[in-house]
Amino acid sequence: MNMTVLNAPAPAPARDPLDGLFDGLFRPMDADGVYARTGHYEAVVEALQSLISRQREDGTEIFRFPPVMSRRHLETHGYLKSFPNLLGCVSCLEGSEAEIRAAADRHAAGGDWTASLETADLVLTPAACYPVYPIAAARGAVPAEGYRFDVACDCFRREPSRDLDRLQSFRMREYVCVGSPEQIQAFRERWIVKATALADRLGLAYEVVQASDPFFGRVGQMMAMSQLEQALKFELLVPLRGEAAGTACMSFNYHREHFGTTWNLRDAAGEPAHTGCVAFGIDRLAVALFATHGLDTAAWPAGVREALAP
Amino acid sequence: MNMTVLNAPAPAPARDPLDGLFDGLFRPMDADGVYARTGHYEAVVEALQSLISRQREDGTEIFRFPPVMSRRHLETHGYLKSFPNLLGCVSCLEGSEAEIRAAADRHAAGGDWTASLETADLVLTPAACYPVYPIAAARGAVPAEGYRFDVACDCFRREPSRDLDRLQSFRMREYVCVGSPEQIQAFRERWIVKATALADRLGLAYEVVQASDPFFGRVGQMMAMSQLEQALKFELLVPLRGEAAGTACMSFNYHREHFGTTWNLRDAAGEPAHTGCVAFGIDRLAVALFATHGLDTAAWPAGVREALAP
Repeated sequence: MNMTVLNAPAPAPARDPLDGLFDGLFRPMDADGVYARTGHYEAVVEALQSLISRQREDGTEIFRFPPVMSRRHLETHGYLKSFPNLLGCVSCLEGSEAEIRAAADRHAAGGDWTASLETADLVLTPAACYPVYPIAAARGAVPAEGYRFDVACDCFRREPSRDLDRLQSFRMREYVCVGSPEQIQAFRERWIVKATALADRLGLAYEVVQASDPFFGRVGQMMAMSQLEQALKFELLVPLRGEAAGTACMSFNYHREHFGTTWNLRDAAGEPAHTGCVAFGIDRLAVALFATHGLDTAAWPAGVREALAP
Repeated sequence: MNMTVLNAPAPAPARDPLDGLFDGLFRPMDADGVYARTGHYEAVVEALQSLISRQREDGTEIFRFPPVMSRRHLETHGYLKSFPNLLGCVSCLEGSEAEIRAAADRHAAGGDWTASLETADLVLTPAACYPVYPIAAARGAVPAEGYRFDVACDCFRREPSRDLDRLQSFRMREYVCVGSPEQIQAFRERWIVKATALADRLGLAYEVVQASDPFFGRVGQMMAMSQLEQALKFELLVPLRGEAAGTACMSFNYHREHFGTTWNLRDAAGEPAHTGCVAFGIDRLAVALFATHGLDTAAWPAGVREALAP
């Protein structure tokens, strides 16, 4: 038996074609999917946000959410049923000075201090639109013309990965509509047209396909099938790895009365409001732009540079 | 004995004079110090960020950090010794599908599911400059001219409060300098001049005072005294409540060789680099602007509107 061969390092797994972009856009921060963003990358992120702002429809109300939200609210949303594996909770050291100091001292002595952590009333926000429904519901009956919101948030999903198009911490921007089924359907159809025009201006290849959310486990597979059958979700996929399936960079979602019922968000007649949203994965779109046009933004096609000009 | 009097609700505590700003700037999100930000408020936040960007010195490198960072890195920073009470850790449901589903089902049955959470390798970033030191250290010896960084982050500190100038989740922007003691002292002196000029342009009343960090507990009191004795920290305080002590909206910090030693960040001769930073509390500055000039930004003094123009 040849020990040299046995001890040789395993061949490195064939890594992702996007890896070549890493050094130009990010710096490692000791965790997969959590990266420092360079000024070069952020300039494109800011330009994308501005471009999307310029598409904002009249009468749209703006909210920006912090990266944490109420744990009780996320539980009410049913997140533990749908995506318990992706949830990030906040936990803290609570109690007296002596108790907190004891935990810190355990760390200083080389021990595990994390057993002292207690779950707080906050979670990391997993999608930009979750916080807007209780805010809308607090206003009473939804007016006949419905609501339109422009929301954004740094989102978190617990899926560590070295793929640059699957970050644990990422920016999501959404336009949200609250109203009648007809208003939501019209909103979604309008936005599929607008969003594909936006992808054209950005010089991105894409296809718009019916899709489902990554609901957890076997129960989740049934939820996903029902979502597909009802055509509730479409995604705009951008091919980032040659012939492989594209990456979802935008999505177009019809939630039916799910949030209306959950938050008692009703129209003047007492019927649960319907809701829908178009979501822009800002970091995925930025990575898609660099993957498509290269690291040198000055050399990007004139039309793309024009679309992203301030 | 008059039971009616005994059972009468206690008089509401005299609430904060800043409370009158709440509805114009924020919406509640079911947790003290965690608020949705209106478009009206965010327009001022964005203008402030741009104004601070225009003060950036030549040769400054930009990084933007996600709201989470490596737990191991924050432990290495000594955060558990200094501020264990303010720390927010990320915890998640790990394990097999059956284990995660069992926790979710416990919630669905009305039970407590949080006992199943496991501490992850991530924490909520408590200050914008922490992630930059290991990034700088990874480059090898600090060049003779030192480094200057422009960093920003959504920060978290576990101190629930209803005061609008003490949020749990808030934006921090910093300019950071890495180099010789003389470079850091000059950087800090330069920035005290620039930053007070900025506060003048914003029409804010202020005083710059020597300060200390809120180190935890009795051990912390000694750390704070040492910090004061060495004049390592100054704060720019803006009075937001009449005669009461002002709120720290900027700080000017000299860390001596603390981060240089911690991260093995050394000059060409092998000496630990010194570091310093100027920190802008973006949300505190925005609240200070509204508290000083009122909710109607169109009626703000012409000079302030000019300073905040794009």
